[in-house]
Amino acid sequence: MILLLCDYGLSGPYLGEVTAVIKRLAPRAEVINLFPDLPRGDINAAAVLLAAVTADYPPDTVLFCVVDPGVGTFNDRPTILRIAERWYVGPDNGIFDLVAGRAGCSECEEIVWRPARISRSFHGRDLYAPVCAGLADGRLPETMRREWRRLHVLEDDPRVVVYIDGFGNAFTGVRARTLPQGCSLRCGSHDAIRQAGTFADVPRGGAFWYENSSGLAEIAVNQGSAAEQLNIKVGDRVEIIFPAANAGDR
Amino acid sequence: MILLLCDYGLSGPYLGEVTAVIKRLAPRAEVINLFPDLPRGDINAAAVLLAAVTADYPPDTVLFCVVDPGVGTFNDRPTILRIAERWYVGPDNGIFDLVAGRAGCSECEEIVWRPARISRSFHGRDLYAPVCAGLADGRLPETMRREWRRLHVLEDDPRVVVYIDGFGNAFTGVRARTLPQGCSLRCGSHDAIRQAGTFADVPRGGAFWYENSSGLAEIAVNQGSAAEQLNIKVGDRVEIIFPAANAGDR
Amino acid sequence: MILLLCDYGLSGPYLGEVTAVIKRLAPRAEVINLFPDLPRGDINAAAVLLAAVTADYPPDTVLFCVVDPGVGTFNDRPTILRIAERWYVGPDNGIFDLVAGRAGCSECEEIVWRPARISRSFHGRDLYAPVCAGLADGRLPETMRREWRRLHVLEDDPRVVVYIDGFGNAFTGVRARTLPQGCSLRCGSHDAIRQAGTFADVPRGGAFWYENSSGLAEIAVNQGSAAEQLNIKVGDRVEIIFPAANAGDR
Repeated sequence: MILLLCDYGLSGPYLGEVTAVIKRLAPRAEVINLFPDLPRGDINAAAVLLAAVTADYPPDTVLFCVVDPGVGTFNDRPTILRIAERWYVGPDNGIFDLVAGRAGCSECEEIVWRPARISRSFHGRDLYAPVCAGLADGRLPETMRREWRRLHVLEDDPRVVVYIDGFGNAFTGVRARTLPQGCSLRCGSHDAIRQAGTFADVPRGGAFWYENSSGLAEIAVNQGSAAEQLNIKVGDRVEIIFPAANAGDR
Repeated sequence: MILLLCDYGLSGPYLGEVTAVIKRLAPRAEVINLFPDLPRGDINAAAVLLAAVTADYPPDTVLFCVVDPGVGTFNDRPTILRIAERWYVGPDNGIFDLVAGRAGCSECEEIVWRPARISRSFHGRDLYAPVCAGLADGRLPETMRREWRRLHVLEDDPRVVVYIDGFGNAFTGVRARTLPQGCSLRCGSHDAIRQAGTFADVPRGGAFWYENSSGLAEIAVNQGSAAEQLNIKVGDRVEIIFPAANAGDR
Repeated sequence: MILLLCDYGLSGPYLGEVTAVIKRLAPRAEVINLFPDLPRGDINAAAVLLAAVTADYPPDTVLFCVVDPGVGTFNDRPTILRIAERWYVGPDNGIFDLVAGRAGCSECEEIVWRPARISRSFHGRDLYAPVCAGLADGRLPETMRREWRRLHVLEDDPRVVVYIDGFGNAFTGVRARTLPQGCSLRCGSHDAIRQAGTFADVPRGGAFWYENSSGLAEIAVNQGSAAEQLNIKVGDRVEIIFPAANAGDR
C-alpha cells in the first residue's frame, strides 16, 4: 500500500500523474491519497501531520511524503527512512524530523538514483513516485547509507495550529496525551478553550478542544467552524493554560 | 464495490483514512468516492441525495453513508439496511428515511459490534469502514435485528434545494417525475423557472429546470451558474407553479 | 489504464459515477483522475492541456476527455481518436484539435452506439464511460469511420493562460520549447517576466517563467502565487518579448 501525503492539493494533474507513474511501474500496488492538501510549503505542519497520521500503518507500507518549498533543487536530499518497518520517502528538509526523532531513527538512505528524464519542478512524479513503486514491489533504488540527523530546530509537539480541516476544526501540533488533563488552550480570539471528550459533550456552537482521531489536540466548535468563529489560521500560536490546583492542594 | 457518500469533503485525511482501513481489511474491494461532499451535517439533504444517486447499483454493492451531526455519540444507532439487495451502512439519524421508506423497508440490523479502539470523533473510519469491508467480503458484523422506523418527520420529495454542484446547478429535493409536466419552479430570486429538456434547449445564460442525471429536478443556467445568477443556496425553498389549464379545459 | 480528464471538478457525484460505471463494466481497469478540473466549458484550454499532459502514456491507454459546453446534444459528435496507439474518447468539439493536429491524425471513429438509457445531461457517465470501459477490455463500440478535420480555428501554442493551479502558477498555452531562449513574457500586471530554470533559481517572491513539468511555459512566483501577485486569470493574453539581438549581430 502506497499512501500519498503532499501539499499539491486535489486540483490539476499532479496527484493523477503521481498515481499513474506508480501504477505503470507497480500495477498491483494500492495507491491512496492519504493527505493531499498539507499546508503548502509548510515544513513544520508537514512534520507534525505526517507523524500523526502515519503511525498506525503496518510494515512495508510506503509513504510518499512531499512538501518541498525548495522545488527543483536537490539541496534537500531525497531520502528513504525505515521507521517501524514502514518506508518514508521524500525530501529530507525537516518533514521527517518528528516521525524519525520520536522513533529514535539514526540512519537513512539517501536516494542516489536519478531517472533518465527529470523535470525541474516535479520530483514527486519523476523521482519519488518511481522510488515508491519500486519499494512497493520490494526493489530498493540505488542509495547511499548515511547518518540521519534532525535538520531543523523543530520542537516536538509545537504549540501552533498546523491544519484547518474542511469543517473548520483547527489541528494543533500538540499530541493531546502530552497535555495535562483539564488544561485549557488560548488560541485565536478565545482566551480559554476548555477540554471536552467530543462534539456531543458541548452545546451547539460551543468551542472546546479534544483529542482528535489522529491523537492531536484539536480546537473545534460543535456544529460550527472553529476557524471562523475563533478567527484561527494555520501558524497561529497555541498557549496552554494549566488547570488551577484543586482546593485540597492550597 | 464499496461506494463512499459522506460530508467529509475531499480535503484532509478523512477519505484517505476510510479508504485505507477498508483496503487493509478487504484488499480486493473496489472503493469509490461516490459523493464526498454532501452538505455538511444536513440530514435532509443527505436523505434525498443518497436515495437519488444509489438507486441503480447492483446487488451486494456496499454504501458507506456517513453524515453525522451528532459526532461521537451512538445516540444515532449504527445501522445496516438491506435494500434492493444492496447494503446501506451508517448512523440511523434520518439519512436513510427516504431510501428505506420508498423501498418499504421494515427491518434493519443495528450494529452491536464495537472495535477494540475507537476514536471519539471518527466513527466513519473506526466503525463503519470495517463493517463495510466485512460486508464486501461477505461477513456480517454482530448485529441486532430490529424494526426500522422512519426517525424524522421528513416529507418525501422535499421542496428545498439540497445541493449546489461545482457548475452552480441547484439540485432540488424533488424527483422530476413527480412534478406535473410543464410546471415552473419559484426559487431564489426567480419567480418562474420554466422546464426544458436539457441545457442546449435554452439560450446561453437562460435559466431553466430539467430532470438531472440523478432524476431530481435541477435548476440550471445554460453555460452559467444558477446559484450565483439566481442567488440560490442549499436549504432554499422551492415552490411549484402549476401549469395553467389549457384552453379546452376552461 | 483509463485516465479521466474533464471539467466536472472533484465535488458532487460526477467523477464517482463515471468511475463506478467503468469499474462495473471493466473491473480490472485502473481508473485515474488525471485532470479533474479543466477550466469549465473552455475548449481552447482543454485542447492545450489534453495535448500537454497525455503525450507520454503508453499504447492502449484510454483517455476519457470530456469538456462539453453543448451539454445534452450530439451536435459535437462522440468520437474516438487513435493517436500514438492511445485511445482518445470524447465529444469532437475542438478539444482534440491540438493533439490530433500535431499527430497528423487524419481519420477518426464516430461513436454510433447509444446506450439503452441515456440522460440528457451526463453523456460522460452514460455514453463515454461505457465506451472507455469497452476499449480498456479490447472491445470497440459500433462506430463509423470518417475523415477527421480540425473543427475550430484554434491556433497551436495559443498565447493565452489556460490554467491556474492550486499554487497559483499560470500555465500558458505555449510549449516552452517553441519559445526563443531568453525571451520574456508579458502577462497580467507584469511587463516582462523573465525566464528561469526553476523555482529555486529565483529569489523568494520573484516572478519568472519556466518550462513546467508538462512542457508548457508557466508563469510562477517562487513561494508565492503568480495568479494573485500578477493578477492573472484563465484566458488572459500572453505576449512574447523577444530577447534583444546580441552585440555581434548589430
